[in-house]
Amino acid sequence: MSDGLVGPVEVVGVGLLGTSVALACRRAGLDVLLTDVSADHVRTASALGAGRPRVEGDRPQLVVVAVPPDHLGAAIAQALRDSDAVVTDVGSVKTGPLAAVAGEPGVRRYVGGHPMAGSERSGPLAATADLFEGRPWAVAPHPDADPDGVALVEQLAELCAAVVVRLSPEDHDRAVARTSHVPHLLASLAAGRLADAPADYLKLSGQGVRDVTRVAGGSPELYGQIVAANSAAVVELLAEVRVGLDAMISALTDADRARLWELLERGVDGTRAIPGKHGGPVRPTASVFVSVPDEPGVLARLFAAAGESDVNIEDVHIDHDLGREVGLVELLVDETRAEHLLASLESRGWVTHR
Amino acid sequence: MSDGLVGPVEVVGVGLLGTSVALACRRAGLDVLLTDVSADHVRTASALGAGRPRVEGDRPQLVVVAVPPDHLGAAIAQALRDSDAVVTDVGSVKTGPLAAVAGEPGVRRYVGGHPMAGSERSGPLAATADLFEGRPWAVAPHPDADPDGVALVEQLAELCAAVVVRLSPEDHDRAVARTSHVPHLLASLAAGRLADAPADYLKLSGQGVRDVTRVAGGSPELYGQIVAANSAAVVELLAEVRVGLDAMISALTDADRARLWELLERGVDGTRAIPGKHGGPVRPTASVFVSVPDEPGVLARLFAAAGESDVNIEDVHIDHDLGREVGLVELLVDETRAEHLLASLESRGWVTHR
Repeated sequence: MSDGLVGPVEVVGVGLLGTSVALACRRAGLDVLLTDVSADHVRTASALGAGRPRVEGDRPQLVVVAVPPDHLGAAIAQALRDSDAVVTDVGSVKTGPLAAVAGEPGVRRYVGGHPMAGSERSGPLAATADLFEGRPWAVAPHPDADPDGVALVEQLAELCAAVVVRLSPEDHDRAVARTSHVPHLLASLAAGRLADAPADYLKLSGQGVRDVTRVAGGSPELYGQIVAANSAAVVELLAEVRVGLDAMISALTDADRARLWELLERGVDGTRAIPGKHGGPVRPTASVFVSVPDEPGVLARLFAAAGESDVNIEDVHIDHDLGREVGLVELLVDETRAEHLLASLESRGWVTHR
Repeated sequence: MSDGLVGPVEVVGVGLLGTSVALACRRAGLDVLLTDVSADHVRTASALGAGRPRVEGDRPQLVVVAVPPDHLGAAIAQALRDSDAVVTDVGSVKTGPLAAVAGEPGVRRYVGGHPMAGSERSGPLAATADLFEGRPWAVAPHPDADPDGVALVEQLAELCAAVVVRLSPEDHDRAVARTSHVPHLLASLAAGRLADAPADYLKLSGQGVRDVTRVAGGSPELYGQIVAANSAAVVELLAEVRVGLDAMISALTDADRARLWELLERGVDGTRAIPGKHGGPVRPTASVFVSVPDEPGVLARLFAAAGESDVNIEDVHIDHDLGREVGLVELLVDETRAEHLLASLESRGWVTHR
């Protein structure tokens, strides 16, 4: 096995993720081989400069399997049989595909991967070499995986400008159940309660419910496949959620304030546990609200004014008004800088409030 | 009763909401009387220009009760006894306070209200006359409420630049259970699952889980009071959530894809039911991602570039990278304008992706 990633890299499945990996490899000067059940997709990806169709005699160093969750296990097994290359994948779940290939003679060459990137678009035309920039890329080798293969997959992630997070396949699946699948399902449940609500009720919707339910707008077909593929870890957590939900119902029914606060406190602890920017601890932020007319260019003027105040904006939310052509922009900044930003924006004529 | 809101307006409880109402009334030139159990708060609010302490002989036209949820009923009853003014409040729940004052001789003068505004800060120093600008303000009169009183409260909301949403007290409480209380509790349950997760798991957190759990960071003490005050409507909805949760667990356990997709589809329907900007239908948006260095002023340059493209930014999300000094900015724009914005930003040298 080689000392480093020199190619060729074969990409099996040239949709959004596969073609984006291929483009990043091409940008790094590697030879890229493209394979897909759709000859159209291969032609499109080739035309985008993502690589060339694989031909007889090609010997990939690394195969990246990027097919839909339902076909992952079979496609990885096939890739292990087709060559002596290291094989990785970009699937959202890791233990299922591993179980599917556990009996393959070449299983030591398989190292599961999962870049935390995507888009509401799909297909090769939506691909970009920058898709993974700064995103976590889970590398989840099984205990018998070849260490050189693991190193090769980590090099691929780094070549894509992603940040490697090493986890076992089991830990990976438990992790995404917590950080992605269960939050998505709870967002769906919250959103489901809005589906048949009277329209007047929904006029009271604020930024909170929009934030909570946003992910629930994702494709049920794709998300159904992903969650079903991780059903063991998801069901285990949903059982915990059910215990918590029952505790909330009891606390409310029994007017047990102490128990209710305890459950809410646990939620506060959870929000604080999410890593802050750059992987560091979460720094306390404060919100500065600004009323702005809803027209092109107004955010540019607002951010220019904020920039002149030398305050770094940590996050932004835009809350559109009911029936008025004015929006409310929430700027989240370091707590110690909020008063300065507020005064600075006021002095420049902006309508601010905290 | 007068033809319009001419004052004096008495504000009982000069915290964030009360003082903000007072400041808006003062801005409109009305005489404002301030009352609070804390003489300090009254002094502070007076010093901010929010009004003057109420004295013997003052006869308010309208009393705005802005005390914590647990004290609301008693304070409204007291206000009805203390004068012949119209009495409103700014509490998050409407049926409980109404039940508490149902036996008062002056109950016809009570018209419940609920401005959908707030801040993570509290107290008079955080107040601002603009707090309610463009926000929904529920006006929830009981069936026997005096129509002139209702008109007066709606004038107050309009004076505060809010958008009046008229609902019965019962409908109001069912509405906020759906649009605020239950989403908050589900966010707490999702966040609770992160509280004791291994740190490595949380490195896979993306924008999705941050959005879902953000509201769960709110004060358990305040939120506990609010949710407890609306326990009947909340428990009814949580029972529906429980049915949905059990259906999800069964669908996953039985590998029943059709049922799982149905539940996810219902969530999609719910996200589409939330009114779009300016109360109109939701317009389809598309995301354009831009990688930016994490430094003051960079968002100003980005929004200036977007402004030059003449594309209106509907929403913004900033996803900070794990361990890298680069952030990913997601710009949500009208679907038909996304390609134009992408090309325009690229031509100006920005690193974009979809």
